[in-house]
Amino acid sequence: MATFGDIGVAAGLNILFAVAFLIAFAILRLQPINDRVYFPKWYLLGVRNCPSRQGSFVTKFVNLDWRSYIRFLNWVPDALRMPELQLIDHAGLDSAVYLRIYLLGLKIFVPIALLSWAILVPINWTNNTLENGGASKKLEYSNIDKLSISNVPYGSPRFWTHIVMAYAFTFWTCYSLRNEYAKVAEMRLHFLASKKRRPDQFTVLVRNVPPDQDESVSEAVEHFFLVNHPDHYLTHQVVINANKLAKLVQEKKSKKNWLDYYQLKFERKQSRPMTKTGFLGLWGEKVDAIDHQIAEIDRLTKEIAEERKRVKSDPKCIMPAAFVSFKTRWGAAVCAQTQQSRNPTLWLTDWASEPRDVYWNNLAIPYVSLTIRKLIVTVAFFFLTFFFVIPVTFVQSLANIEGIEKRAPFLEPIIEVPFIKSVVQGVLPGIALKIFLLILPTILIMIAKLEGLLSISAMERISAFRYYIFYFINVFLVSVIAGTAFEQLDSFLRQSANDITRIIGVAIPMKATFFITYVMVDGWTGVAGEIFRLTPLILFHLKNFFLVKTEKDREEAMDPGSIEFHMAEPRLQLYFLLGLVYAVVTPIFLPFILVFFVLAYVVFRHQIINVYNQKYESAASFWPDVHARIIYSLVFSQIMLIGLMSTKGNAQFTPFLIALVVLTIWFHLFCKGRYEPAFVRYPLQVAVTNSSHEAMMKDTLERAIEPNLDLKSYLQNAYIHPVFKNEDEEKDGEDVDEKIQESLLVATTRSRRNTPAPSKCSDGSSPLLPESVSENAGSQR
Amino acid sequence: MATFGDIGVAAGLNILFAVAFLIAFAILRLQPINDRVYFPKWYLLGVRNCPSRQGSFVTKFVNLDWRSYIRFLNWVPDALRMPELQLIDHAGLDSAVYLRIYLLGLKIFVPIALLSWAILVPINWTNNTLENGGASKKLEYSNIDKLSISNVPYGSPRFWTHIVMAYAFTFWTCYSLRNEYAKVAEMRLHFLASKKRRPDQFTVLVRNVPPDQDESVSEAVEHFFLVNHPDHYLTHQVVINANKLAKLVQEKKSKKNWLDYYQLKFERKQSRPMTKTGFLGLWGEKVDAIDHQIAEIDRLTKEIAEERKRVKSDPKCIMPAAFVSFKTRWGAAVCAQTQQSRNPTLWLTDWASEPRDVYWNNLAIPYVSLTIRKLIVTVAFFFLTFFFVIPVTFVQSLANIEGIEKRAPFLEPIIEVPFIKSVVQGVLPGIALKIFLLILPTILIMIAKLEGLLSISAMERISAFRYYIFYFINVFLVSVIAGTAFEQLDSFLRQSANDITRIIGVAIPMKATFFITYVMVDGWTGVAGEIFRLTPLILFHLKNFFLVKTEKDREEAMDPGSIEFHMAEPRLQLYFLLGLVYAVVTPIFLPFILVFFVLAYVVFRHQIINVYNQKYESAASFWPDVHARIIYSLVFSQIMLIGLMSTKGNAQFTPFLIALVVLTIWFHLFCKGRYEPAFVRYPLQVAVTNSSHEAMMKDTLERAIEPNLDLKSYLQNAYIHPVFKNEDEEKDGEDVDEKIQESLLVATTRSRRNTPAPSKCSDGSSPLLPESVSENAGSQR
Repeated sequence: MATFGDIGVAAGLNILFAVAFLIAFAILRLQPINDRVYFPKWYLLGVRNCPSRQGSFVTKFVNLDWRSYIRFLNWVPDALRMPELQLIDHAGLDSAVYLRIYLLGLKIFVPIALLSWAILVPINWTNNTLENGGASKKLEYSNIDKLSISNVPYGSPRFWTHIVMAYAFTFWTCYSLRNEYAKVAEMRLHFLASKKRRPDQFTVLVRNVPPDQDESVSEAVEHFFLVNHPDHYLTHQVVINANKLAKLVQEKKSKKNWLDYYQLKFERKQSRPMTKTGFLGLWGEKVDAIDHQIAEIDRLTKEIAEERKRVKSDPKCIMPAAFVSFKTRWGAAVCAQTQQSRNPTLWLTDWASEPRDVYWNNLAIPYVSLTIRKLIVTVAFFFLTFFFVIPVTFVQSLANIEGIEKRAPFLEPIIEVPFIKSVVQGVLPGIALKIFLLILPTILIMIAKLEGLLSISAMERISAFRYYIFYFINVFLVSVIAGTAFEQLDSFLRQSANDITRIIGVAIPMKATFFITYVMVDGWTGVAGEIFRLTPLILFHLKNFFLVKTEKDREEAMDPGSIEFHMAEPRLQLYFLLGLVYAVVTPIFLPFILVFFVLAYVVFRHQIINVYNQKYESAASFWPDVHARIIYSLVFSQIMLIGLMSTKGNAQFTPFLIALVVLTIWFHLFCKGRYEPAFVRYPLQVAVTNSSHEAMMKDTLERAIEPNLDLKSYLQNAYIHPVFKNEDEEKDGEDVDEKIQESLLVATTRSRRNTPAPSKCSDGSSPLLPESVSENAGSQR
Repeated sequence: MATFGDIGVAAGLNILFAVAFLIAFAILRLQPINDRVYFPKWYLLGVRNCPSRQGSFVTKFVNLDWRSYIRFLNWVPDALRMPELQLIDHAGLDSAVYLRIYLLGLKIFVPIALLSWAILVPINWTNNTLENGGASKKLEYSNIDKLSISNVPYGSPRFWTHIVMAYAFTFWTCYSLRNEYAKVAEMRLHFLASKKRRPDQFTVLVRNVPPDQDESVSEAVEHFFLVNHPDHYLTHQVVINANKLAKLVQEKKSKKNWLDYYQLKFERKQSRPMTKTGFLGLWGEKVDAIDHQIAEIDRLTKEIAEERKRVKSDPKCIMPAAFVSFKTRWGAAVCAQTQQSRNPTLWLTDWASEPRDVYWNNLAIPYVSLTIRKLIVTVAFFFLTFFFVIPVTFVQSLANIEGIEKRAPFLEPIIEVPFIKSVVQGVLPGIALKIFLLILPTILIMIAKLEGLLSISAMERISAFRYYIFYFINVFLVSVIAGTAFEQLDSFLRQSANDITRIIGVAIPMKATFFITYVMVDGWTGVAGEIFRLTPLILFHLKNFFLVKTEKDREEAMDPGSIEFHMAEPRLQLYFLLGLVYAVVTPIFLPFILVFFVLAYVVFRHQIINVYNQKYESAASFWPDVHARIIYSLVFSQIMLIGLMSTKGNAQFTPFLIALVVLTIWFHLFCKGRYEPAFVRYPLQVAVTNSSHEAMMKDTLERAIEPNLDLKSYLQNAYIHPVFKNEDEEKDGEDVDEKIQESLLVATTRSRRNTPAPSKCSDGSSPLLPESVSENAGSQR
């Protein structure tokens, strides 16, 4: 067991790293050359211009204004200053609500920390079980354990305090959760209600259109809705399988990039660059690179035009699904929420997702295939969770010293150097595991795509759920109880429910110091590293040096990233789990969690304001998941306490704790019934908020304001496959010599890069720059 | 272990009993005096008249026509002859689909029985494990065990056959289940679509109307729906708390009964009967009974009039709920399926149940109270299931010989007679348990009422679910593993999942003979007793002799009963469970189950045609529950097999069986997604079937056929509290001297007795009597 001293050293080290990252960030962000790395959001919004255009050559790259260095920590108040409403306007509701998870952490854990330090710490401290027991049973203990529940003697009536505290913590957590749920639900409703007209409010996705011999899909859809919704049907857009076309367009884009690269090279060296026609330019006939690329682009342009024609006319490319738009929100709400046909697997209607949230490839999967996919994916995820150790171990067995020597004998002299040998032996197995954990979210998203989900947001939500389970079993439980996940599964089958809770209950307090270190490494240093953005920084400068020629290229070289809900939220949930589990057991744990929540809140608020560019807007539809996982952590902490108490000679507490579990689950069901209807599944979001009442009021209002509105033309092209949307742009780009003019196309590019259409663009008012940022930008010029 | 001989004796006894019941029934039903006991359904339909009006005095009571005795077994083909469509018309879809459960049992188990006798029995029989093992280990065994899986030696490859059979049985069961689900769903849709106009197709129940200072509930409802559904809203009916009024009406009715009784007495004895005014007429002042009752009735009539006035005007009696009717089915479907207000706990809309299915007292429970009730009821049911033994044991401890002698010393000489003593000691404890099991369904219905459910059908469905759980734990598991439910719960917590399946797997084959006896007693004799209707027979004749004066009284003395879904279905499910569990393990079990299904099908078909009078019509909304419980039995039987195999030295089969479990659960989810939308929760039934498409077509059709239809007046009084509905009748009855005319009121009475409004009454066509029944009725006159 670690002592205060050990923890102090670890804390010192981690604080050092974190502070180093923060200072590096604070200085680097002031350099104009890094401006696009640390403020990409503003560029995407079109509010900020490249600072390198003004001033002398040096000031283009380095900030020489000493005054700005004095205020180098200003980013913290800057990040906190933007009010929440403006933040929603600036970055979307998803991001604003995501930040509230950190705030919720503070709201839950600050009072719990105060209470447990005021009551539990003295009660634990004023025993001497460990001192006495340590002498007789030779137990090692430290000062940290003296503050924990381990120091209370067997069967002591003092445990009553812990039970009362468990009740107090549970009630406080539930109270905070309820308030937060109500608040988020209200924000969501307000957000959806106050938004301007959006295509997804009028549009319903219809799937499983039954095949008809006499009619095309388009005709069938039109007839069906003209008959069944004669007063409301407006138009529809059949879903087209344009996957091959999308691939060709992608290929053309890549060729253009190469062309740019060679032209740049040519300008610099004044000699025609050569290339080989084979794979990756590594072999094959040698040709003039620029000519070759131009020829390739010409070929692709023709192919694309042909494919485009084929896709539009070939009935095989038309999928039995369509986006159907209605004249009113009310009509769409009715259609999305009612069953259309007797056979509940035909004419399935759902709210359409936001156009940029649609996952086009999955729109045409029939019902039976969907259920089979679900079965396969569930089984696959089960094996992934419990047997992932097998491939990792296999890779590790290959990646040892002997394996490397066998495969690459020329490395032998280097590896045999003792220092390098020990590094390889110590680090390689860990790296194999780490790499697997890093690619896991990608695997999970892939699985979600395979499952046939229809929108990216839904995929991210289910991946987050699975990632959390994986994390809980393979990181949390594996740390608490030794053995791999599969060994645990096996022993869980062989042990009784009582034994399992007891084993976990006993193991948890002993792992406190391990998790404290984890929080410091992953929570403190990790978050500080996030703001530093080392990888995007390096990549941007590399790209900038080697590839960038035009403004458009520079824009593409930026990597704003996004919150990555499916990775970030499950890892964040681990802190809730740790906090709730250790609140009663080891109160000393809580301050470390609090530091994490404060730091992460500030950092992510800064990132969301200045960096991240969300890929879609789901209007906080992930909140029920967040809520449910915190409740799950709460219930787990209570069950763990039952196990712990039964080993402490206090089995009489069990009924009280079981009652607490029942009450907590009831609270969850209550919240589910009370607030979840405002979220439901993603496609229903708008329906619920713009409930028929609301929808009708809005419709009426809108008709009064804009009597001549041509809704049809507004909706006609809203749900076109993205490859068709870029058609105009593609045509512009066909003449390769006109490429210089492309810098004028920034506006088009922006829409392609998934920037949330900012409200200021559509309503025409001038952009409202936050005061802090304009001041900030000013100081750099 | 019982041998073939033992089972033969038990079978003989039970067959004897069953045949005795059937013969008694066959003879008694031919006597005109019993006509109302065995054919009440036809009386309630108004098709059959009292046979006692014609013929001589003797033939009024006894059937002297010897020819009818020759054909005394004719009821069996009679019961089977009515085609299903006519049955639906005659008794409703609920009853027809209920019968299909027995048919489904036959469909599942006939092929399984054939297959297992053809394959498994030879395989089991051609081993001699038990003979060899019996010699060495002194195991007792019988011929029955020689046919069961116990006879296959440890680790034998022959177990592969059992695994293959488990797969075959599962696939066959799932195939039958899927076909049946599809068929029932289609029947339901057809039933709802082909029905004439029903008020619940146009009506939505609105609950949690928010209180408003300026408006009454009625005004608030009207304004809300006029604003939000202007094109569709027709009328509404506020829910009134008339519980006190209902009580007064009930009291008046009872007084009238007494008045009848005294008048009858007076006519017979020609002396004014006297009564006492106190409790039950046992003490108090002595008064002329007829005058006293008339005075009481007068007083109650006045009170009722006052209360009626008060209820209608007092705002405290008006509950924040209303039945809102729409002009079209489409309007109602939209309103019922969409959320009305931002706050999802206000303006809750649901399809209204059929008027006679509404449970009026629960209509005004607010949302929060509902969730708390759910929590309380869940906890209460948990304790009821696992701790019901405690009160039973307590009663048993009182009801022993010593307890009785202590409390009733005068019984001592009788009880001390050795024979009586042994009877009391042997029977009393069992009776305490039996009484508890008999009142359990009533307790469960009470609990469901407490839970706040809105319709009687929903209550019966949830009670059936709970009764099944109770039966599974307290009858099935307690029989398989010794010990009370609570002891089991305790040992399940202390034992690992592996051990639990193993214990059950080992115990199941050993209990085969016990359950065979159970099937014969409960299934064969019990079902034969059901058709005999001993209790209603005795009660009817008692009432007929002491109370009945008018035709109306005689009608009320009839007790047609009903299927009592909440009692009958869970007990029926036990046979599916036993059949599926023993199909692989002890194939000899299956013929006993088959006999039960055949007998029960014939008996219940007869009862449904001739006796039962359903209280409501839910259009088979219980089918998803039936389906789910059979799936549950299937999964249980597979898990049991895993446990059994692991004790037979064949743990390598476990993955195959786990795959089977996963596939079965997946099949269930598939069916749920595919067919359940046609059933959903009861209130949604019509919405789903008369999906917006259907609803609209029907609306259009109806407008074309009946352009001048006054829908408003049709719907205005559909959803009035039953006490107000009887208003007219009550007024007629106020003049007590006009009672003789009441025999003319049979038609009104019928509607009060919850006869499903037969389609012939509403469409005016002549009643279509099934050929068999008219022939039958003819033979008796």
